Amino acid sequence: MKLLRYGPAGQEKPGLLDAEGRVRDLSGKVADFAGADVSLAALDRIRALDVASLPVVENPGRIGACLASVPNFYGIGLNYAKHAAETGMEPPKEPILFSKAASSLSGPFDPVVIPRGSEKTDWEVELGVVIGRETQYVTEAEALSCVAGYCTINDVSERSFQMERGGQWMKGKSAPTFGPVGPWLVTADEVPDPQTLDLSLSLNGQVVQSSNTDDMIFGVAAIVSYMSQFMRLMPGDIIATGTPSGVGLGMKPQRFLRPGDVMELTVQGLGTQRQEAVASH
Amino acid sequence: MKLLRYGPAGQEKPGLLDAEGRVRDLSGKVADFAGADVSLAALDRIRALDVASLPVVENPGRIGACLASVPNFYGIGLNYAKHAAETGMEPPKEPILFSKAASSLSGPFDPVVIPRGSEKTDWEVELGVVIGRETQYVTEAEALSCVAGYCTINDVSERSFQMERGGQWMKGKSAPTFGPVGPWLVTADEVPDPQTLDLSLSLNGQVVQSSNTDDMIFGVAAIVSYMSQFMRLMPGDIIATGTPSGVGLGMKPQRFLRPGDVMELTVQGLGTQRQEAVASH
Repeated sequence: MKLLRYGPAGQEKPGLLDAEGRVRDLSGKVADFAGADVSLAALDRIRALDVASLPVVENPGRIGACLASVPNFYGIGLNYAKHAAETGMEPPKEPILFSKAASSLSGPFDPVVIPRGSEKTDWEVELGVVIGRETQYVTEAEALSCVAGYCTINDVSERSFQMERGGQWMKGKSAPTFGPVGPWLVTADEVPDPQTLDLSLSLNGQVVQSSNTDDMIFGVAAIVSYMSQFMRLMPGDIIATGTPSGVGLGMKPQRFLRPGDVMELTVQGLGTQRQEAVASH
Repeated sequence: MKLLRYGPAGQEKPGLLDAEGRVRDLSGKVADFAGADVSLAALDRIRALDVASLPVVENPGRIGACLASVPNFYGIGLNYAKHAAETGMEPPKEPILFSKAASSLSGPFDPVVIPRGSEKTDWEVELGVVIGRETQYVTEAEALSCVAGYCTINDVSERSFQMERGGQWMKGKSAPTFGPVGPWLVTADEVPDPQTLDLSLSLNGQVVQSSNTDDMIFGVAAIVSYMSQFMRLMPGDIIATGTPSGVGLGMKPQRFLRPGDVMELTVQGLGTQRQEAVASH
């Protein structure tokens, strides 16, 4: 299934993309997509519905983030070898784990707001993983069975805030609009192998990132199993699994977002996002 | 007001500690304490209630975390000069910001589970700050007006996971039960100056941490203002503001938690926690 949320910001309704590409209204059936409402059991209940009986939404309008909120917004750093090289850092021996503020969550077509004082706001197309059940101490073999689905993420990052302001990365990962997620939550049954997906990002029409998830240093199963040794993953948690090379930080000369720049990004089968960068108020 | 949650884990009810130290049942008045339900506006609605009309709970039983969930569980690192010194690190020039998994949230008297493979689980008594409204780009002068209240926190930390497993600290901060919070959410009007509070922690009856929040390198107002430049703080977000010296990492020889160890910790006016360390299943 391809699940989505449509409507004005803050008033989104849950919906489903049918086989003909039309939005079907799920608001009579589920409250919203977040937390326990995207658990594997909750998704099974949606899957059991008769799609043809759901109202077609003729003009869905704006598409919001495919999740209304996230218990945790995790990220994996330097997870493609060429990206690690372009940042000047060693490829990690274990997954590097950080987090984004939950309030960075944003719609896939909403503007990306360059924060006050920012000179180095950057893009990062990533495969997003949404957790479907409480997950602790799982093996790699069990890990994919804990995944509710996948989505496209732009892990927008302010490089100065991330790396020049003392220690931990989350300062540069957390501004409002730094977490575009969607347009769809594609359930795991439609992604038989998450390590075979092309992903790319263009800036103002020019492709700057282009890779495949088979280049990930740590695959989705390894990441989920590894994280579950340190924390209990919860339904609706989201994990941005790292970005390939081609970010502004790695360009010579470096190139960061300015108002009016347009990013378009896609992960194969998970839909395309488009954001314009705008100045902060 | 002193707000709390009482009852079996997962079935807590919201309550209020009255002037005589009795628990009053708020479950007919508020859903639970989390997110928008601890906003400044929501707290004003509770404040307007006639306490004498609320049912007295004769046997409240277990006291749970004073928040049912947290949108974000932030932490500030190395925020007392002597603690920075005992870890062998320089005092920070800007606040060091990290996060704990939301699923680490735990009751103030619940056991602390030493994770599988852990040799270095450690204690950290801290002043906790709960945010009361959406907060972005606030000055230090405005910052305390964004605070809903304060609570005692044990920022339990696995030092090997935190510092020897690749980069970011959250791996060592996030295990289930690593975030005891409470017993009370004490509203900000009862804490006129958060930089005057004694805080201490004893291990098996021996005081190992003892300090005052006037020793914080960055005070609460500075922390909230600083964080608000990087992210939008939300009602119900919690910030653990750093621990004074006396953690196991800083002892010679180092001393970490073993099953059966008992921690008791207090922040002045915010109540006492007590946890026994237990082995993971």
